[in-house]
Amino acid sequence: MLNFRFIAKVLGHILVALSLFLFASAGVSLLYGEGDFYAHIFSALVCLVPGGIASWVWRKVPKEIGRREGFVIVSTVWVIMSLFGCLPYILSGTIPNFTNAFFETISGFTTTGASVVSDIESLPHGILFWRSITHFIGGMGIIVLAVAILPYFGFGGMSLYNAEAAGISNDKLHPRIKQTAKLLWRIYLVLIGAETIFLMLGGMPLFDALCHSFATIASGGFSTQNDSIAGYSPYIQYIVIVFMLFAGTNFTLFYFVWKGNISRVFENREFRVYLTVIAVITAIVTFTLAILDHHEGEESFRTALFQVVSLITSTGFATADYTAWHPYLTYLMFLLLFSGACAGSTSGGIKIMRHGILFRNTLQEFKRMVHPHAVIPLRINGKPIASDVVYKVLAFVMLYMTIFSLGAFGLTVVGMDMDSAMGAAATTMGGIGPGLGTVGPVDNYFAVPQAGKWILSFLMLLGRLELFTVLILFSPHFWKK
Amino acid sequence: MLNFRFIAKVLGHILVALSLFLFASAGVSLLYGEGDFYAHIFSALVCLVPGGIASWVWRKVPKEIGRREGFVIVSTVWVIMSLFGCLPYILSGTIPNFTNAFFETISGFTTTGASVVSDIESLPHGILFWRSITHFIGGMGIIVLAVAILPYFGFGGMSLYNAEAAGISNDKLHPRIKQTAKLLWRIYLVLIGAETIFLMLGGMPLFDALCHSFATIASGGFSTQNDSIAGYSPYIQYIVIVFMLFAGTNFTLFYFVWKGNISRVFENREFRVYLTVIAVITAIVTFTLAILDHHEGEESFRTALFQVVSLITSTGFATADYTAWHPYLTYLMFLLLFSGACAGSTSGGIKIMRHGILFRNTLQEFKRMVHPHAVIPLRINGKPIASDVVYKVLAFVMLYMTIFSLGAFGLTVVGMDMDSAMGAAATTMGGIGPGLGTVGPVDNYFAVPQAGKWILSFLMLLGRLELFTVLILFSPHFWKK
Repeated sequence: MLNFRFIAKVLGHILVALSLFLFASAGVSLLYGEGDFYAHIFSALVCLVPGGIASWVWRKVPKEIGRREGFVIVSTVWVIMSLFGCLPYILSGTIPNFTNAFFETISGFTTTGASVVSDIESLPHGILFWRSITHFIGGMGIIVLAVAILPYFGFGGMSLYNAEAAGISNDKLHPRIKQTAKLLWRIYLVLIGAETIFLMLGGMPLFDALCHSFATIASGGFSTQNDSIAGYSPYIQYIVIVFMLFAGTNFTLFYFVWKGNISRVFENREFRVYLTVIAVITAIVTFTLAILDHHEGEESFRTALFQVVSLITSTGFATADYTAWHPYLTYLMFLLLFSGACAGSTSGGIKIMRHGILFRNTLQEFKRMVHPHAVIPLRINGKPIASDVVYKVLAFVMLYMTIFSLGAFGLTVVGMDMDSAMGAAATTMGGIGPGLGTVGPVDNYFAVPQAGKWILSFLMLLGRLELFTVLILFSPHFWKK
Repeated sequence: MLNFRFIAKVLGHILVALSLFLFASAGVSLLYGEGDFYAHIFSALVCLVPGGIASWVWRKVPKEIGRREGFVIVSTVWVIMSLFGCLPYILSGTIPNFTNAFFETISGFTTTGASVVSDIESLPHGILFWRSITHFIGGMGIIVLAVAILPYFGFGGMSLYNAEAAGISNDKLHPRIKQTAKLLWRIYLVLIGAETIFLMLGGMPLFDALCHSFATIASGGFSTQNDSIAGYSPYIQYIVIVFMLFAGTNFTLFYFVWKGNISRVFENREFRVYLTVIAVITAIVTFTLAILDHHEGEESFRTALFQVVSLITSTGFATADYTAWHPYLTYLMFLLLFSGACAGSTSGGIKIMRHGILFRNTLQEFKRMVHPHAVIPLRINGKPIASDVVYKVLAFVMLYMTIFSLGAFGLTVVGMDMDSAMGAAATTMGGIGPGLGTVGPVDNYFAVPQAGKWILSFLMLLGRLELFTVLILFSPHFWKK
């Protein structure tokens, strides 16, 4: 029997926290005096009252958390937050339709950044702030989830990382979830603060700098501008690139840097592959734009680097429309939607660690074929990978590709064309934002049929929570016993 | 050091055998008196002379075959046959361009059925016969390869089958390759003979019946008609459907039927999944065509069943243009390109057995997550699957998807649009034939750029020989020692 009182207590705490952020965006609204003030206040109260009651009624429920309670909490938190978090959009009338408002909110909390808003610049500042805050909250949630909670359940990107680092005891930050979370949040906040300052140095107003920093470090992608980052100076674009790169980096590495252990950062294999992949693809795109299409050199490089980093880190900011590039570049960008950056970062998708394990296994198979009777275990960084880790990765990637295929199929059923459907499914599962066809970087998701938006919302949730966390709730094994 | 003399001897035998088939097509040419006679005769001599010399010079080389020689022979046989086999097209002037002729030939030998010929009906009968004979030879080769040779090397579809059947000793036909090959060829010839008779009963002339039977049982797809099977009667279409189904079935099952052990056929899990998948997808397509598009019921069912069976068995015959269907049906057909039918059949692609193992592993992962400390091995039909089999399947599918992605990328680089590139890469790797976009079922590959045809030829070879057989030759491990 699930401990529902404990679940209710945790969700109560979450709602109270959510109401605080809503009061904050009410404050922003008050500051700009744009009439969406009461929408925020009312939303905050709708969160605060049930949240407060649940927190108070079950205040004495012990803090012990079981695996099954953990799964339920993790999966429902994102849904509950999105259900309550879409209230400001609806109440302010900026996104009156419930489906659209829910889509925008879950896109924020899952740090996807897919939007239904056509004229972003017409939104009041309070709403823009709330929209960016959903990224901020989602990013905070995911680093704790990825680095502290999921490994405790024995899966997720970071448990792979630990599997790699088995034997290197201090690659784990701290054993206790609470301490780890605090340290990660400090890194997270420092990164946001640093980016905000650097953006302001480039002439961006505080408000926009803060919103873009929330979106960058959470690898979200919501901008305050209709043309995303395209209208900003090269300096600002480079700053955003650097911080997107940081957001896609394993947060543990910042801890090493802070401890003065820089060499450890470049010993990290995943990080090196991450930079290499970005370098290679950026080179291909730059070459095409500069040599074949005769664009200016620095601009070609910057455009290439920006889109590549934005997609691989699953941020989804844009400075160019890659769907208008040569077909092979568009296809390359499509493939990037399946990449993901480092485990233990805020980025989404499959992640480089998993690709690496699968790639290694394939290489090993060639060795095994030449020497069929030799026992050749799978090694990464010289350390053997346990077979259950390989099985987990295998199961994850297969499930990922299956859900991608089913999701895209569902989208074609509700009327999207094949390219747009595949692009939309891939980009929402990977938490990126822009896709292909009718949902490319210069388009938005407004025109997607209602049923399609629910499919996409579910894909965002699945992708963000590493599939199994959500799907296990639908498994009979979970409810048996 | 590789035993090159042994390799040369085997290739010599193959060339002599090829010359016999070329003499046969010369005979057909003589019968119809269409002027391509000398093209066949000259091609036959070009095969016979070096083949005969190699066979005679190295006649005393012992018959022992090592693993490494086996890999080299298997990979080079298909290439050598295609190099020599394209001579009749070039010499007769029907396909004067070498790239095109090679493409058509390797498409035949790999039983893919992708064609560069726009007006098939204008070809002389001798050439049409040779074109179908390449399917016949390729099919013969693959059943021996898949059922007898590859498992000896420890991989391939059938070794998975044996892995499943471990413990059921007489699921293996006969331990000796030669006996097994003879038995399989008998089944193969009986199926071709039976289909030819049934097609003739439906009014198809002997020549066309024979050519279509070659193409069906080899799961090839070359037709003697410009509109493939579309112009034939419903009776003939149903006959072709039934024999395509047979071609996608594990040939071991026919052995059981012959032994009177019918129950064993339906105990075979892969076979049941194969029929179930066909039934489900056919139902979806039929429903759409009949109810939503208001086509006639029987015709809708027949059209649906034909395309589904043709794609899943990797035959590639067509009676309709699925790219003109609803986008979700086109997408469903695209997904089918990655399916493949049963292990131990003439069909290509990933195959149902492999999908099954991956699917099972994913289901197990849910169990493992709920009970993290229980040891839950992967079972199929109640029998545990060894972890090295799972690793092999994992490596195969990952390599398959990687090569698909790279292949499609290569095709976009040479100028194909994304849909056509993905469709062409998937369909050639799977040995099917028709793809998407500019290479759909009513189009052909003539307009694909030359470089693209070489990419596609390589993909056909890789897909047909289960990837590793070919790629291991590029692995340093293979040449070390």
